[in-house]
Amino acid sequence: MTGKLKYGMVGGGKGAFIGAVHRMAAALDQQAVLTAGALSIHPGEAIESGKELGLADSRNYASWQEMVEKEAKLPKGERIDFVSIVTPNFTHYEIARAFASIGIHVICEKPMVNSSEQARNLISLVDKSGIVFGVTYNYSGYPMVKQARHMVSSGKLGTIRKVIVEYNQGWLATKLEETGQQQASWRVDPKRAGLGGAIGDIGSHAEQLTSFITGLEMDSVCADLTSFVPGRLLDDDANVLLRFTNGAKGILTASQIEIGHENDLRIRIFGTQASLEWHQENPNQLMFKPINEPEQILRRGNGYLCDEAKANIRIPAGHPEAFIEAFANIYRGVFAAIRAGKGGSKYGGSGGLEFPTVRDGARGVHFIETVVASSKSDQKWTAAKFES
Amino acid sequence: MTGKLKYGMVGGGKGAFIGAVHRMAAALDQQAVLTAGALSIHPGEAIESGKELGLADSRNYASWQEMVEKEAKLPKGERIDFVSIVTPNFTHYEIARAFASIGIHVICEKPMVNSSEQARNLISLVDKSGIVFGVTYNYSGYPMVKQARHMVSSGKLGTIRKVIVEYNQGWLATKLEETGQQQASWRVDPKRAGLGGAIGDIGSHAEQLTSFITGLEMDSVCADLTSFVPGRLLDDDANVLLRFTNGAKGILTASQIEIGHENDLRIRIFGTQASLEWHQENPNQLMFKPINEPEQILRRGNGYLCDEAKANIRIPAGHPEAFIEAFANIYRGVFAAIRAGKGGSKYGGSGGLEFPTVRDGARGVHFIETVVASSKSDQKWTAAKFES
Amino acid sequence: MTGKLKYGMVGGGKGAFIGAVHRMAAALDQQAVLTAGALSIHPGEAIESGKELGLADSRNYASWQEMVEKEAKLPKGERIDFVSIVTPNFTHYEIARAFASIGIHVICEKPMVNSSEQARNLISLVDKSGIVFGVTYNYSGYPMVKQARHMVSSGKLGTIRKVIVEYNQGWLATKLEETGQQQASWRVDPKRAGLGGAIGDIGSHAEQLTSFITGLEMDSVCADLTSFVPGRLLDDDANVLLRFTNGAKGILTASQIEIGHENDLRIRIFGTQASLEWHQENPNQLMFKPINEPEQILRRGNGYLCDEAKANIRIPAGHPEAFIEAFANIYRGVFAAIRAGKGGSKYGGSGGLEFPTVRDGARGVHFIETVVASSKSDQKWTAAKFES
Amino acid sequence: MTGKLKYGMVGGGKGAFIGAVHRMAAALDQQAVLTAGALSIHPGEAIESGKELGLADSRNYASWQEMVEKEAKLPKGERIDFVSIVTPNFTHYEIARAFASIGIHVICEKPMVNSSEQARNLISLVDKSGIVFGVTYNYSGYPMVKQARHMVSSGKLGTIRKVIVEYNQGWLATKLEETGQQQASWRVDPKRAGLGGAIGDIGSHAEQLTSFITGLEMDSVCADLTSFVPGRLLDDDANVLLRFTNGAKGILTASQIEIGHENDLRIRIFGTQASLEWHQENPNQLMFKPINEPEQILRRGNGYLCDEAKANIRIPAGHPEAFIEAFANIYRGVFAAIRAGKGGSKYGGSGGLEFPTVRDGARGVHFIETVVASSKSDQKWTAAKFES
Repeated sequence: MTGKLKYGMVGGGKGAFIGAVHRMAAALDQQAVLTAGALSIHPGEAIESGKELGLADSRNYASWQEMVEKEAKLPKGERIDFVSIVTPNFTHYEIARAFASIGIHVICEKPMVNSSEQARNLISLVDKSGIVFGVTYNYSGYPMVKQARHMVSSGKLGTIRKVIVEYNQGWLATKLEETGQQQASWRVDPKRAGLGGAIGDIGSHAEQLTSFITGLEMDSVCADLTSFVPGRLLDDDANVLLRFTNGAKGILTASQIEIGHENDLRIRIFGTQASLEWHQENPNQLMFKPINEPEQILRRGNGYLCDEAKANIRIPAGHPEAFIEAFANIYRGVFAAIRAGKGGSKYGGSGGLEFPTVRDGARGVHFIETVVASSKSDQKWTAAKFES
Repeated sequence: MTGKLKYGMVGGGKGAFIGAVHRMAAALDQQAVLTAGALSIHPGEAIESGKELGLADSRNYASWQEMVEKEAKLPKGERIDFVSIVTPNFTHYEIARAFASIGIHVICEKPMVNSSEQARNLISLVDKSGIVFGVTYNYSGYPMVKQARHMVSSGKLGTIRKVIVEYNQGWLATKLEETGQQQASWRVDPKRAGLGGAIGDIGSHAEQLTSFITGLEMDSVCADLTSFVPGRLLDDDANVLLRFTNGAKGILTASQIEIGHENDLRIRIFGTQASLEWHQENPNQLMFKPINEPEQILRRGNGYLCDEAKANIRIPAGHPEAFIEAFANIYRGVFAAIRAGKGGSKYGGSGGLEFPTVRDGARGVHFIETVVASSKSDQKWTAAKFES
Repeated sequence: MTGKLKYGMVGGGKGAFIGAVHRMAAALDQQAVLTAGALSIHPGEAIESGKELGLADSRNYASWQEMVEKEAKLPKGERIDFVSIVTPNFTHYEIARAFASIGIHVICEKPMVNSSEQARNLISLVDKSGIVFGVTYNYSGYPMVKQARHMVSSGKLGTIRKVIVEYNQGWLATKLEETGQQQASWRVDPKRAGLGGAIGDIGSHAEQLTSFITGLEMDSVCADLTSFVPGRLLDDDANVLLRFTNGAKGILTASQIEIGHENDLRIRIFGTQASLEWHQENPNQLMFKPINEPEQILRRGNGYLCDEAKANIRIPAGHPEAFIEAFANIYRGVFAAIRAGKGGSKYGGSGGLEFPTVRDGARGVHFIETVVASSKSDQKWTAAKFES
Repeated sequence: MTGKLKYGMVGGGKGAFIGAVHRMAAALDQQAVLTAGALSIHPGEAIESGKELGLADSRNYASWQEMVEKEAKLPKGERIDFVSIVTPNFTHYEIARAFASIGIHVICEKPMVNSSEQARNLISLVDKSGIVFGVTYNYSGYPMVKQARHMVSSGKLGTIRKVIVEYNQGWLATKLEETGQQQASWRVDPKRAGLGGAIGDIGSHAEQLTSFITGLEMDSVCADLTSFVPGRLLDDDANVLLRFTNGAKGILTASQIEIGHENDLRIRIFGTQASLEWHQENPNQLMFKPINEPEQILRRGNGYLCDEAKANIRIPAGHPEAFIEAFANIYRGVFAAIRAGKGGSKYGGSGGLEFPTVRDGARGVHFIETVVASSKSDQKWTAAKFES
């Protein structure tokens, strides 16, 4: 397949944050063009948002149901190649199923769906349909995260003993949901966000980053979730002890009440030979600490990095790339898979074109369920093993 | 004017670094579409590069001369709105003149032209034609640079006493130009790069950043330029003492032999009441140091920032934006000016939509000339005042 | 009492690390002179070490028992004012009791004793004898830790919701105890170190720092201790979830297998209004993060700090002070209490002269016992409340 | 010579900053005891200060002249071994001469004397008398500075091309001398401070650090000194271009009006193979940047450091040492030279026991003279070569 890909978007109309990010990620490399949309749950807003984005009237839909129905009828060369689903969590499942079932590739926000049962159904459907299904765990798109994954898998750390992964935010330290802030209002609402608050929104990123870099499997968890802000129904702070199947231990903390932290995802991985440290807010560098040697600062864009890290940059060392570029790397991986006509495997693609798939999405949903269950339990350890 | 802008590009074919950056900057906000190009000085390469980028054959030109000629004949709605000139320095003048003279808006790489005489001519032509002319001193696009400018102009620093501006790079510490590296080969060649090596390529960014943030005018300079790498004809290291017309003093250093530095542009500004510090490689923060109070870290995306800083972000605090986004901010300023049908004024636009214009480009050229002259002089101080 | 204090030391002979630190801490302010010693458990080494340190033969004892006996017989003006106990943990109790019972003030290393029962006995004895008893939780001596404590107690953070305290080390990532390294050999030996490995050696510092700064009381803990290095009997890694009596939550991690970390004690405290962050390896600064305002870097030696912070510096801002000076601050607090003839109260002294007392030592012992018990338990939460 | 050294102090009475630092530096390792003093220019204050410090009445002198006279008459074992001169600059010469001429070793503050002529005289006297003469350029005492020196001299950087050395302070940004602050009042007074303000007080440290680490000799300088604060007679800001005899270039800036900087001495050294960077305010680490490899962070206390760095620590890695310890390292070097009965050579001692001598002091004085002359000159370059 040559030429630009055509895509549609569900959600992401006016005032939405993440929809705009997806559009920039899709646009950055000039490989895809927004061609259709059902940009809001409210038909009026959907149409208005589509107009603003320059959608042709014929492809500017009032609802995703209409979009599925009408796109399905378009000839192959005309209809969208993939859809980006950027709605609140609770709607992903139905929408993803609908597009998958008409053979349209899917890029879906996380958490992918609301339950492990939905996740299993979606895996079956994706496997059957053969579509490419990407989940925007965007932090795996950072080149220095690819480098970290490479260093672990090539043995630079020895055997992993411990992981400390943190996702520190402070934006929900007050009752922001009462001010009309759109993001805040649905993220703290169990009906729209699902089981998890902080643990669902950001804890799932922390889980995925750990999985992506280390390849470790969780064995069990011991969680303490809290809703600090009075009247809030979902957790805004999650502290979790982790045990991995190889005997490694870990700590995962995800919080939205930590004043002074903005979007501070960070990870430290300790092995028998060396350790690694990476911070999302300073994403162009990776700290490598070999035993008995000076600590090293590895920087994006240098010749000493692995091929996967090199394949995920657009500009030279010292010219920082950041969040949008990493997001675009996920899109780029999906684009390559679509063009190659392949999909479905774990971290589809290779050589730096890996992207989180429906299975990674499912593992994330399972993780949220498990942590929430653990937090309610008096039992110390709750089994966390995921089998897809 | 509504809808997407059409643009052409001169230079920026295969292997070029900065052309790709311009295309990403133009694409990011989905406001402009690459419609025409003369992407190389070599006709074959030009055509091939255009094909790869998906240009229609009719708009894929073998030379910029052909592009000027044919675009001029297209009806208004069809021809390009602006051209991005991303060729080596020595060609900018002729190309810019040609497009300006047919009324096509221009975005031009820096240093803008090769001499103050050319610069003056270009200013006249731009003034006469009324086109919008932007120069990609891209670092002024960073939101925290806008914040710095705002804080200086609103008096937060008191009177400025001293500026230390550095542009530290190490990529030319060895004779990279002999390895076939494309960037290196023309940047060290006086025929293509002009009078200045490091001082032209990066020293001019340092000068512009100083001017943009502080508004100070240079009075005189005392420069020591060196070519450290044997056989190199242009400076690869420049150390300059500065005096400003208000009595402030300064140091400017620009080097390409400082191993371990990648693209380390940084500035410190000291006033009678407070000081500021900003580093391009960590662009989302700005250090503010009020006298007798704790140092503050101001971060992109927060409510306490000025309107200009707020107008130049795409995603929230903690989700880092970087080089490409800042570059796109320059484009965005130019887009707004084109849509408004305005151009020519110093830092065209306002409310965060400022962008460097032909006058800023001219000042930069004058600065390079002055520093090179100072370095050759036995006299301590060389007058550096710029009148456009 | 005027003039220099006379002191004796038990332990701290050749090859010992912490004894030398105590001597420097005592010497720095020229308020105390080492006058007597029983510097090793091995009489020959004790005598030899004493000679090297310039002790008079008559005060250079072969054993601490001899020292107690003979110092007790000296006239008041001649005998030592206090003793520093710097032996391995398991011996503290007996030695401290002996000196306390003859009315000699005590500075004792942590963990203070081996069991809560011993701790209770020691409290009684200290209360009865009226001696000053300091425990060298030296990190409370840092001026910026005093500042943190002040800011919490004066309400700058609002109500505390969460604490993350870490003590990251990597020096025991390999089986160092087999190489003859003196420190390593006793610290991993349950007979000499007591119940806890990492949790006892450094976890107890983390607990004390939390208590000192926040004043929070622990309600319950959930711990996972691990011995990663094969054959090691005590934990070399401890991960603990914390619950405080006011509803605050916390994470405490103490590890000695985290390669790349040297002595990385750090703490973050999150309140409803602001948060604080301090790192022992960069001790001259304290990060203060008020809600909706720029982060602040408070630095030692500045006029804007509290009196307690100001009282604990020796040199101006920018002239860094570090570990030894903080240690000397603990000594200074004890000196003041001795000179004032007062002792025994919680964090004896005031106005910056606070120091950890026998009660803080007892709380630390209780904490270690509780965490070890929790780690062995299947029950999620183990009560951790300490009543002295 | 065994046992503790006896020393006297001239200056350093109540309210003085640096005298107290010298006393802590002398006390830290318990190798020297303050035995005599003439602690102020005002006899009453001198006596009172001596009492506070516990001097015996017979050794508590009202003037340094009395001290010279009376100490000279004491028998060898009783009289002081060395004197620490910590008075304002303009008095050093006479005092140092007096003690040197009665064979008492000298530790002298910097700048050593007021003119090159005085410096030459002092060198002759020191050479003739055979005393040990140390100048407290204390920053050479830092272990990581020793490491830097070692790496340069062992060729790790290749040939040095460029040095950027900065000494940034802000404490004189306002007219502090009018508030009665003791430090400020004499440092800005040409009668007491000498020719240089910032360049003398701190610029001389920057010069010495450069010399100590790189071994480069200055060839010529081009200076721009400014007195920013109205009415101030000496420079409070100095910007200097440097040329070294090997062809290397440099920038030296020393300022006391840079608000937000406290005592920010830092140096970057660029060679053909690698570069180094060190910051006094973060003294336990040294950045090493080898070409085409990741940057390394070398940290005090580690096995991979050179012997000189290892010989200058007291406590392990991660337990930070700082200003006072570095100062004490200078003292330790002098102590070793005194005990060895040796003196006079450049950087007396070896194996980490190097300390700045009378010749280094002389070079510093020459540097100040040269920079001040250059600043007044219209000529671009002023010869700066120093021959002792």
